[in-house]
Amino acid sequence: MIKEIANHRSIRKYKSSPIDEEVLSDILHSAARASTCGNMQLYSLVVTLDARVRAELAPCHFNQAMVTEAPCVVTVCADVHRFSKWCEQRDAEPAYDNFEWFLNAATDALLAAENLALAAEAHGLGVCFLGTTLYTARDICRILHLPKGVIPLTTVVIGHPAEQPPLTDRLPLDAVVHYDRYKDYTDAEIDELWAEKEASPETSALLAENGLPNLAQIFTRNRYRREDNIAISRAYFELLREQGFFNQ
Amino acid sequence: MIKEIANHRSIRKYKSSPIDEEVLSDILHSAARASTCGNMQLYSLVVTLDARVRAELAPCHFNQAMVTEAPCVVTVCADVHRFSKWCEQRDAEPAYDNFEWFLNAATDALLAAENLALAAEAHGLGVCFLGTTLYTARDICRILHLPKGVIPLTTVVIGHPAEQPPLTDRLPLDAVVHYDRYKDYTDAEIDELWAEKEASPETSALLAENGLPNLAQIFTRNRYRREDNIAISRAYFELLREQGFFNQ
Repeated sequence: MIKEIANHRSIRKYKSSPIDEEVLSDILHSAARASTCGNMQLYSLVVTLDARVRAELAPCHFNQAMVTEAPCVVTVCADVHRFSKWCEQRDAEPAYDNFEWFLNAATDALLAAENLALAAEAHGLGVCFLGTTLYTARDICRILHLPKGVIPLTTVVIGHPAEQPPLTDRLPLDAVVHYDRYKDYTDAEIDELWAEKEASPETSALLAENGLPNLAQIFTRNRYRREDNIAISRAYFELLREQGFFNQ
Repeated sequence: MIKEIANHRSIRKYKSSPIDEEVLSDILHSAARASTCGNMQLYSLVVTLDARVRAELAPCHFNQAMVTEAPCVVTVCADVHRFSKWCEQRDAEPAYDNFEWFLNAATDALLAAENLALAAEAHGLGVCFLGTTLYTARDICRILHLPKGVIPLTTVVIGHPAEQPPLTDRLPLDAVVHYDRYKDYTDAEIDELWAEKEASPETSALLAENGLPNLAQIFTRNRYRREDNIAISRAYFELLREQGFFNQ
């Protein structure tokens, strides 16, 4: 297995030391080598090094310390703006302001983001993906000056790690892999796939801490609640329309 | 730069020889090591080896020969179904049937897909991402028996390469990277970023072949036309609703 893939883990504590310029260049070039729809490169990477701008972004990521402590925060965006502008300058009528092209651009952006993460790890750096990007995408657009045709999808924090946490567990491979066609899960299979995770000391600790009877309820009652999910869904979809990805 | 990232290219011609079982296992385990939202693993990989099922999928990918010639076609899906089923079995009320969780699941799926591709390349195999997946997602759901809560995003063809094409070009890194905040492009910058691509022999050949005055018009008038983009956008969004990703 590729070493960086095998050793990948989220790093949440960083030293403040900056990333070497050549290293950063290699990381960004690595991102740009990912496959992209029609070789159109429908994404932008906003590489925020300036501590003041990272401080502005911090509340968008619930003030997690790593956003200000790590030297580099990359906001990964779907971007049909640049390509559309090129088309307009060539008397070609762009038609990328719709949901299909949001998805094409998101695919480009996220494949590039994984290259970015692995490339950083190949240089001994740590990374963390921030899911909070979707929750506060409107504020991120404002802070980073994202024009119409650009929308944030995820954020990758990069820096020198100040911790070395263990690898996190995964469900057995059978959980995510289906051969030939999708085989739906029986109740017994679901029980079996989650058995190890549910029996782990980490889960026992979480249950005691949360005062809840099982791990699933920690997700549904504490971590990701329906009312928040609905509010985030509506807000992001409204932003998607405003940023010009839903003219159809 | 990680060797597989530096050498990545799309392979469209394959030998029919099968993928070694241990190699395939390593590739799939590599996919599963990618970061995932809350460690929820909201994706499924439908690994189609059976030639009959690949033949059923072929029209969904415009009958590109590689779908039937390569031994392995992986349909990469966002999947909130498995996690929701687990919650239901634990008396926890899942709330992942909305747009936020489509995006979280799509992010999980696409980060895993890039690991999958790089891992395959590390074993000397070739890969190709198929954007056609979005165009014909409804048919793919039917053929692969995808239940509610699961939707296809992309497809990765994997096999032993029968060609070794050159690396494809990319825009200068400045095109996709912005420091600190997004800096919008001047007309002159757009011209400069595309100058090399527009002056290439590949572009000249395309212009002659298509009888069009510039490269941008090849995209807008021939490759990706507005009426098709709109039709695909509407169809995919309708499917997204039906598959239960838009209750909000």
